[in-house]
Amino acid sequence: MALALEGIKVVDVSQVAAAPMAARHLADFGADVIHVENPIAGDSLRSVQTGIGLATGAPQPSGFKHYWENYNRNKRSITVDASKEDGQKILYRLVCQADVYLTNMRPYEQAKFKLDYQTVSELNPKIIYGSLTGYGKEGTEKDAPGYDHTAYWPRTGLAHRVALAAGASPDAVPSSFVPSFGDNVAGLALAFGITLALVVRDRTGVGQEVDLSLFQTGVYHNSWDICASLVTGRDLDPIPLRENFPNPLQTVYQTKDKRWLVLCMPQSDRYWPRFCQAIGRRELENDTRFNSFENRAMNQATLFHIVEQVFLSRSLDEWQPMLNKSGLSWGPYQNFTEVIKDPQARDNDFFIDYNHPTYGHVEVVANPIKLSRTPATLRMPAPELGQNTEQILLELDYTWEDIKQLKKQGVIA
Amino acid sequence: MALALEGIKVVDVSQVAAAPMAARHLADFGADVIHVENPIAGDSLRSVQTGIGLATGAPQPSGFKHYWENYNRNKRSITVDASKEDGQKILYRLVCQADVYLTNMRPYEQAKFKLDYQTVSELNPKIIYGSLTGYGKEGTEKDAPGYDHTAYWPRTGLAHRVALAAGASPDAVPSSFVPSFGDNVAGLALAFGITLALVVRDRTGVGQEVDLSLFQTGVYHNSWDICASLVTGRDLDPIPLRENFPNPLQTVYQTKDKRWLVLCMPQSDRYWPRFCQAIGRRELENDTRFNSFENRAMNQATLFHIVEQVFLSRSLDEWQPMLNKSGLSWGPYQNFTEVIKDPQARDNDFFIDYNHPTYGHVEVVANPIKLSRTPATLRMPAPELGQNTEQILLELDYTWEDIKQLKKQGVIA
Repeated sequence: MALALEGIKVVDVSQVAAAPMAARHLADFGADVIHVENPIAGDSLRSVQTGIGLATGAPQPSGFKHYWENYNRNKRSITVDASKEDGQKILYRLVCQADVYLTNMRPYEQAKFKLDYQTVSELNPKIIYGSLTGYGKEGTEKDAPGYDHTAYWPRTGLAHRVALAAGASPDAVPSSFVPSFGDNVAGLALAFGITLALVVRDRTGVGQEVDLSLFQTGVYHNSWDICASLVTGRDLDPIPLRENFPNPLQTVYQTKDKRWLVLCMPQSDRYWPRFCQAIGRRELENDTRFNSFENRAMNQATLFHIVEQVFLSRSLDEWQPMLNKSGLSWGPYQNFTEVIKDPQARDNDFFIDYNHPTYGHVEVVANPIKLSRTPATLRMPAPELGQNTEQILLELDYTWEDIKQLKKQGVIA
Repeated sequence: MALALEGIKVVDVSQVAAAPMAARHLADFGADVIHVENPIAGDSLRSVQTGIGLATGAPQPSGFKHYWENYNRNKRSITVDASKEDGQKILYRLVCQADVYLTNMRPYEQAKFKLDYQTVSELNPKIIYGSLTGYGKEGTEKDAPGYDHTAYWPRTGLAHRVALAAGASPDAVPSSFVPSFGDNVAGLALAFGITLALVVRDRTGVGQEVDLSLFQTGVYHNSWDICASLVTGRDLDPIPLRENFPNPLQTVYQTKDKRWLVLCMPQSDRYWPRFCQAIGRRELENDTRFNSFENRAMNQATLFHIVEQVFLSRSLDEWQPMLNKSGLSWGPYQNFTEVIKDPQARDNDFFIDYNHPTYGHVEVVANPIKLSRTPATLRMPAPELGQNTEQILLELDYTWEDIKQLKKQGVIA
């Protein structure tokens, strides 16, 4: 077996980002994923590529639809109008031979299009029904439209948390949004839930519903702080500025060339001698002001100032080998041009290059999960709208005559 | 079957956050997870609770160790000194009867303690070996210590991305860190990878290595922007301020009571009539300056100013039902005291309360993945250091006499 999910069939009735990403993970690991799209509009992510309605700061590149590719590689596309009865019949045939059904329709839409768990599981009791909502299946907001820009980033406290960590004043304008920030996490969580349900089904023959929301995934993401507030009932205290951190081996410094780096040595006693050596200040090692965690905390302002001056004396490129050689725990702040050139990223194959049939040589972001025997693969570029409609209908025993009729009625495109 | 991973045995030789969180996910779904800790120091997350070396802004609460609980509930704890040969023998016995081995030892440590994949898989060829590193298994930094504060947040461009979205000036001090921000995502990814490998093993009888890094998981998290830079070779363009967004139905506004909300209606034509109604400005609907996406973009400054004034006229509590009633896509910015009281979070059981044997009634953050037939459960609080040492050794056929000797030698505590 070369592919982890060889033979697993997934019907992906979802749009934009989070649920399509869950399906892409399954596709990366070998599942046959059929992405179902509206015959007229298609998945609305297709139009995001043009920048309409978004102001993401991302430069508009060549014709290569990198966003579309990132969420839909390794999938096939079929157009189906789910609002028409004949469209629902196509979906029911797909459901009957599928292992997984994936959707981000809201509960009221699932019911309206007769594609709710009840209906789908009656057709195929072994099916795993993965459902992603904005705000959960209960409560007054269960049918509210949810994006990660609303349900995940601001509402869970993440935007608040990051603003505090950046030292923003309490009345500052909050950051607007980071595209797909929560979607990529929720996509992982949904793929994990579906795979858990596959384990159960392989053992017991029983399917089930896997349900998660953007809002709850964001609360989980932020659980470090939220589990504290659940106990104290309080919000975070203000976070000290970098020069006031009790441990000067765990804060942010600037270099000579105006770059920034962060030190992260919470167990600082272990690192202290090596740190003094790495920065060329061995005389500090046994200085009684600094020779233990407690002493450094007591004299942190003095030590911060010394270390600040030291880091300002060389460029980041000079510091990198010196700090690495001593095995210190630290990292540089990088922008995206730096990330895509990072030698460590390149040495570990964070990016895959391939020849796209339309756009030629392109590079995309690899799946981060490395399985030694059944690795993720890139087998197909993301499909054109409805690229596989006829092929899939023929697999479902529709005839060419049926296909002609369905096109005529606008059920497919 | 009431638990998804009933009967799955996991040996969790990891510390702090990301890999322990992966193990906690498996434990939440019913695996028997044995958390292996050093007899003297224990998992270093135990001491983080006291605040030493950290400056997280989190208020220090009552005695309840909520951080420890968040990463280690549903597990058992055994103390083993992995640097001693008799300690390795205990781990080998655990390995022989386990399904999953999980570690965040760095490659050189795995080799030093004879707990690398080669050794472990020779003892048990069916084992799934999950490994989390900071920077990947290849390259010059493969043995570097990695935290999410260094490998995930600054190095992947996430800190840079968030600063741009917040309108921070390019030379501003970057945000220091958000505790466990990347760990909780990497924990999900690792749990997903292990579960994929379980599917493969159940079908083919073959185990394998599952390997991921904090750095690569962060690059995946940020793949929306990074896949663009891979094509353009460029960094992000500056992100417009909220008053300059081309779509005034997709930006941030302040309310009368100084709260903030974000509108997210990229397909704004669909929402425009309802939006005008919801804000009590029906006359805008057919105003030729604003009656299409393109017209609103052309007159965005005028429209932004109108909408800004409207939102400033009422409090967030007044807006909430009005916007929800019209089915608009929007969300409030919340701090943590607001999150933990959020009615939608409560209605969907984002938090679980239970009686802790030591601390009494407590609330913790629930698992975000809801499986209808084999749900996550909270069966045990997080263990005290070595709470199950004797119990586990007896299960491995050690005698009480052996246990006495091992204690004497300091192999266990």
